[in-house]
Formats: sequence, C-alpha cells, structure tokens
Amino acid sequence: MLSKAQISLVTSLRHKKFRQQHRLFVVEGHKSVQEFMHSNYRVTTLFAVDEVAAKLGKIPQNIKLQILSWQEFNKISSLKSPQGSLALVELPEQGAFSPDQLTGQVTLMLDDIQDPGNLGTIIRTAEWFGIEQIICSLDTVDAYNPKVVQATMGSLARVKLGYIDLEEWIPQIHIPVYGAVLNGQSIYEIHFPSEAIILMGNEGNGICQSLVKLLQHKITIPKIGQAESLNVAIATTIFCSEVTRQRLTRTNG
Amino acid sequence: MLSKAQISLVTSLRHKKFRQQHRLFVVEGHKSVQEFMHSNYRVTTLFAVDEVAAKLGKIPQNIKLQILSWQEFNKISSLKSPQGSLALVELPEQGAFSPDQLTGQVTLMLDDIQDPGNLGTIIRTAEWFGIEQIICSLDTVDAYNPKVVQATMGSLARVKLGYIDLEEWIPQIHIPVYGAVLNGQSIYEIHFPSEAIILMGNEGNGICQSLVKLLQHKITIPKIGQAESLNVAIATTIFCSEVTRQRLTRTNG
Repeated sequence: MLSKAQISLVTSLRHKKFRQQHRLFVVEGHKSVQEFMHSNYRVTTLFAVDEVAAKLGKIPQNIKLQILSWQEFNKISSLKSPQGSLALVELPEQGAFSPDQLTGQVTLMLDDIQDPGNLGTIIRTAEWFGIEQIICSLDTVDAYNPKVVQATMGSLARVKLGYIDLEEWIPQIHIPVYGAVLNGQSIYEIHFPSEAIILMGNEGNGICQSLVKLLQHKITIPKIGQAESLNVAIATTIFCSEVTRQRLTRTNG
Repeated sequence: MLSKAQISLVTSLRHKKFRQQHRLFVVEGHKSVQEFMHSNYRVTTLFAVDEVAAKLGKIPQNIKLQILSWQEFNKISSLKSPQGSLALVELPEQGAFSPDQLTGQVTLMLDDIQDPGNLGTIIRTAEWFGIEQIICSLDTVDAYNPKVVQATMGSLARVKLGYIDLEEWIPQIHIPVYGAVLNGQSIYEIHFPSEAIILMGNEGNGICQSLVKLLQHKITIPKIGQAESLNVAIATTIFCSEVTRQRLTRTNG
C-alpha cells in the first residue's frame, strides 16, 4: 500500500526546495537504480512493481523495498513512460572541493548551465570520457533535478560533483583554465596538459565576463558552416573528445 | 483575421501525413524564418505579430504576410513559448541523391534515427562543421517534423537532405563508408579522407546488421569511464569534430 504521505513526499522531490528539506532525490529506471545502489550514494527506499523488482538483482538489506502495483507506481513516477522502479537517494553532503583534488586530472567546470537536459547530457558524456569531477557555478541548474538525473543515464552515480562560487574559487587554484569563448584560439591547435580545467558557459551568454578574465586560455571550436551557435552539451563533447584524443595519443605515441 | 481553416491547416502540419498532402511544413521563430526566407526553400506564407514582423527585415513580395494578434498567433504555434513568427514553407521535391554528388566531400548518413531532438541537433552540428549533405534511411524521423526543424536552429535551411533506401544505395557508391559501431577501431587512430561517408545508427540498436556488412571501416569512440553508451547526437558530434580537425590540420600542416 502506498500512502498519501508517500506520494506527497516522492512527488515533492521534483522541486529543489523539498529535495533540500528532505535531503533526498529520486532516481528512476532499473539501470539507473542499480547504478546508484552500487555507488557511494545511499539509497534509502526502493519502490518497484513486482516484475521490475526481479530485474534489480540482490537488494542490500539496509534498503527498504516496497512492492507496488503499476497503478500505484504511476502516481509517483515523473516519467512519460514509467519504468516500474524508483529509488529515494540521500542528497550528498555538499563537501567543499579542495584545490588539491584537481591535481593530475582534467576537471570540467560549468558556469550557469540552465537546461536540465544539457546538464544531464554533459555529465553522461564527461563520464564516458573518464572525467570524474564536475564543478558547477552556484547558478547552474540542480543536478538532482529528476530531468538531469534521467538524462545522465546513471553516470551521475559515478562522478564527483559540486556547486561552488567560481569567481572566488578559480583564483585560488594553480591549474590552467581553458574556457570556451567566441574568437579564441582553435581547439585543434591547443595542447591540453594532463592537468587542466575546462570551463563551459551558459547556453545563451557563454562564460560570464568576470570569469572570462580569469581564463588562462580562450578556446574556440572552429566553424566551417554558417550555423550561428553550437548547443553547450555539443560544445562540451568536442572539448572532452579532444582532451581524450590527445591523452590517448600521448599514451600510445 | 485568422480563419478556422488556416488554424486547421497550420496545426495539421504537425503530422507527416498532412505535410505530405499539402507539400508544406512549418518554421517558427524570427531567426529561423529569416534563414528559410534567404535559402533555396520557398516560403509561401508568413504569420507574424506586429512587433516581430518588424524584426524580419524586408519580406520578398512573393511571400504572403499576415499580421496576427498574439491571441491569434498562440492558436497556431506549437512552441511552449511562441515567438511571434511562423512560416509555411514548401516541402522540397525528394530529388534522388546521385552518387556523384558525394564526390570530394564528407557526407553524413543516418540509419533509423528516431528522436526529433537528436536529428535536429545532428543537422545543426553537422552544418556547423561544414557538412552540407545528410542522407537519411527511409525509417529515420521526418526532418520536417516541427521538433526537428526547431532543434536545427535554422541549419536545416542550409543542408541538402534526402531520404533513401541505404541498403540499395550504398553498394552503388565508390566512396568509403565509416560506420560507428561497438568494438571497432578507435576513431582517434583513423585518417579520414576528404571524400568519405560517416554512417551513424539508431539510438538503441546502432547501425542495422545489413548495413554493418557494407561498411569499409568500423569505428568506435573509445570509452574511458563506465557510461553504458553515448547519445547518438553526441557520437555524431565526435565524428564531425574529428573529421574537421584532420581537415584543418591537413590544410595548415
């Protein structure tokens, strides 16, 4: 039996205010649920219809499993096509990123990304390319928004993600920051070091002026055709791919 | 005055059947409308609210302009946030792509792409990188679907696009076909010639087996992290970027 209070709790988590208040967020779909069960995140409660629960494998004892009918399940799902499993996951503590965590790797930094689908796709793509740390400006859309979680296809479970005041933070680090701007140097002429920060900006406005000033390298994706702009998830992909290409070429070469 | 028949015509064009029947499709937003007005497409009718019509610049005499109130405009727009201009554009004749049109350039080929947002993003991104020809399998989503048109951000006006039976067609061409598959050669180890076809497959299933057999080169995007897959628009971006990088490096090198 699904109580009214449970329906109200789960659906309230579509809003950031209630995610913060309850320190919980929602993950849907058995693949994503599995990824979170086997990650550093703590799943507290699992709602599933019978046949989908069977697909989830062994469920750790500390997770409360509640079997629902499809009719009940549809009341809590926020997906157009509910998939029959939904986990409540503890919101991680917003541990401060310390500058030495960036040592020896490429970190992605996002300034004011607003579209949940874009943020989700960026997290999924970065994680494909082995980028394990993503630092978002305080005004970037919340990564625990259900649309973001869904779009990451489980990758959110594996990246370290934080929200930070970038303007205050960037001057404290000693790793070069490569930012995507118009009229910078071609990305194909840049040699990315193995320790770097890639900074991508807002969908409409790019990187804000106060952060552009802090860039060591201003980088542009060359345009051959006449398209006015690239989507930010697409632009981020090109950075991730080029960093990876150079890294693999160094390793093999 | 907007007649009921006009509302019915414009909204019917959300469906492929009626686009085919009326040989028309819809373009919304003043930037996209402008792109189509100044392209090889023929805009027949333009609906706009007064203040947006002013932004459209000089409107060719052969285009019928009808000024609407916002209240009227909202009845025909399919956007969540209507932008105040909407063009009816003639559906191009489905001219057969002849193999010699592929000479000397990189052509993108799509097998069974289903998501309108993906197709739109692919068209926009390919056009950014100067890929001017896109050949779709017959079962790929219709590029004149309003969601696709919207996602191309005007780039649809500038690419040559056709729907073709790929299985019948590929054996007739003498240009190497590079297909995105699992377990192929790393894209970063491939030298793309200046004349090539890049073939991308369906969101869930990749390139269908009968087409995989026709590939000269099976290519994979190396995975460093643990993400299960990449979105097809993201994968296509990586191909477009790498082809462009090699092309620019050849030119400058």
